[in-house]
Amino acid sequence: MTAQGLPMVVPSEDLPPRVRIHEVGARDGLQNEQRTVPTEVKAEFIRRLAAAGLSTIEATSFVHPKWVPQLADAEELFPIVSELPVALPVLVPNERGLDRALALGVRRIAVFASATESFARANLNRTVDEALSMFEPVVRRAKDHKVHVRGYLSMCFGDPWEGPVPIHQVVRVSKALMDMGCDELSLGDTIGVATPGHVLDLLSELNEERVPTSAIGVHFHDTYGQALANTLAALQHGVTTVDASAGGLGGCPYAKSATGNLATEDLVWMLQGLGIDTGVDLERLTATSVWMAAHLDRPSPSRTVRALSHKE
Amino acid sequence: MTAQGLPMVVPSEDLPPRVRIHEVGARDGLQNEQRTVPTEVKAEFIRRLAAAGLSTIEATSFVHPKWVPQLADAEELFPIVSELPVALPVLVPNERGLDRALALGVRRIAVFASATESFARANLNRTVDEALSMFEPVVRRAKDHKVHVRGYLSMCFGDPWEGPVPIHQVVRVSKALMDMGCDELSLGDTIGVATPGHVLDLLSELNEERVPTSAIGVHFHDTYGQALANTLAALQHGVTTVDASAGGLGGCPYAKSATGNLATEDLVWMLQGLGIDTGVDLERLTATSVWMAAHLDRPSPSRTVRALSHKE
Repeated sequence: MTAQGLPMVVPSEDLPPRVRIHEVGARDGLQNEQRTVPTEVKAEFIRRLAAAGLSTIEATSFVHPKWVPQLADAEELFPIVSELPVALPVLVPNERGLDRALALGVRRIAVFASATESFARANLNRTVDEALSMFEPVVRRAKDHKVHVRGYLSMCFGDPWEGPVPIHQVVRVSKALMDMGCDELSLGDTIGVATPGHVLDLLSELNEERVPTSAIGVHFHDTYGQALANTLAALQHGVTTVDASAGGLGGCPYAKSATGNLATEDLVWMLQGLGIDTGVDLERLTATSVWMAAHLDRPSPSRTVRALSHKE
Repeated sequence: MTAQGLPMVVPSEDLPPRVRIHEVGARDGLQNEQRTVPTEVKAEFIRRLAAAGLSTIEATSFVHPKWVPQLADAEELFPIVSELPVALPVLVPNERGLDRALALGVRRIAVFASATESFARANLNRTVDEALSMFEPVVRRAKDHKVHVRGYLSMCFGDPWEGPVPIHQVVRVSKALMDMGCDELSLGDTIGVATPGHVLDLLSELNEERVPTSAIGVHFHDTYGQALANTLAALQHGVTTVDASAGGLGGCPYAKSATGNLATEDLVWMLQGLGIDTGVDLERLTATSVWMAAHLDRPSPSRTVRALSHKE
């Protein structure tokens, strides 16, 4: 790689020394790609992500295959990768999904709630509170098995049907997930409309309601190009868990745009420049995304992947 | 436009109430596009940018046509747009260019220096100091005519040949431009490698050397997806002049990547969400970029333009 293969390191004040990247490319990314990839390619993707230094790699989903055919091979995939020395959370929508996950020895699960009624209806065919009721026994039983639980919360900033989402609404569902026993939250800007002041307001309101920053991860989408600026604001607030997708995999089906998840490479470029430790080797990660882009037969939307791979 | 046509407004503390966008699409953008557009299309582009609320629109360049054939029509273009009620700076490389500009009644010019020897050689075929010597009479004579002078400084963070650029080197050339009589500086991250801590360090060092923040504009490229995060850091430092290019026009020929200038729409989305006044109507601006993309026969790389135009 050239002289510009890495940014110059200039730390900034008051930022955390270390950030944990929650890599969602293999699950959230591939679930939203048109092309379904073979199980062995998924396993190799996860292996390469682990080899690039990612320590938390969301592996797959135990949603019914009818809803997410791209990840219908969860039972085949998980055992292939389960011995990797990284955390491998999986998505679990209900008790049936939990049973399937527990049978495979899964140690971390995630449930996915919505901050808005419209998206709860569209995604889960339930009201917000009906969905929470569905998750309650899932979380309780997971905790009984000492399984770590993440609570995803979608549409925390804007909703394609409802427009801007009131912060108190997000806080209410966040508290319900924490009270239920979730170990951490992931606040999703599912359609990518958030801006930094909005992010800071939500984080402050959550703190006031005794949801600690240490339990909060942020999940930004780059639909309007705002993901990294929002991430910077969240880091300044003290957030140390950031979701990202290798190569920017996964458009958002609800935003009708080419770009969805924040690309892990764009995030790592910024964190590396800020002297924030992530454990990630950017060169290996970029090579992994280029390799996966070839399998998906479309170029990575990550700007860093494009810039670095043009140089090689 | 839908409920998501504008972000929810949530101001953040300690940010400036108003930002002046220095729109560079018509000059820096079109100069770096492969396709040359007819003079009347350029004029209409500038008219539409003005109608969208942009108050400073860099119009063209008086560089010799041999070097920038895309803007060889400067003499024809400028008189067509000169009556618009906006500031219309033009690029001027030397005394000959200044003569041409003054003959047309230009009221604002910009000179372009380099922070690195490699880029000064590549772009101007001179050393850094030889280029400064060339600009000295240009700036002096412009000031004699009460013409406002902007000093562009390229490669302020990284250089494709030299790698990371030492901050003291950038400060030295910045001071030389200010001492020469420039009214403002534009600090360019020409290859897009900067991260927020690096930006803040450079701004602080400039302040220590008595270059006030009020005289500093920032010019970020989105090659690695960092432009908006860097802009947020600069705003937090107090910067109120931000360069951007409508629709993200203009790749950077030295970075070999698809993306160059920060897109004005992505910037406006963030500023609008932060409650920072820019005077820009995002819907009109987006429509202008969609219109220009059709003339250039390539889609806008701006994420906000893509997201908003997909909805329409």
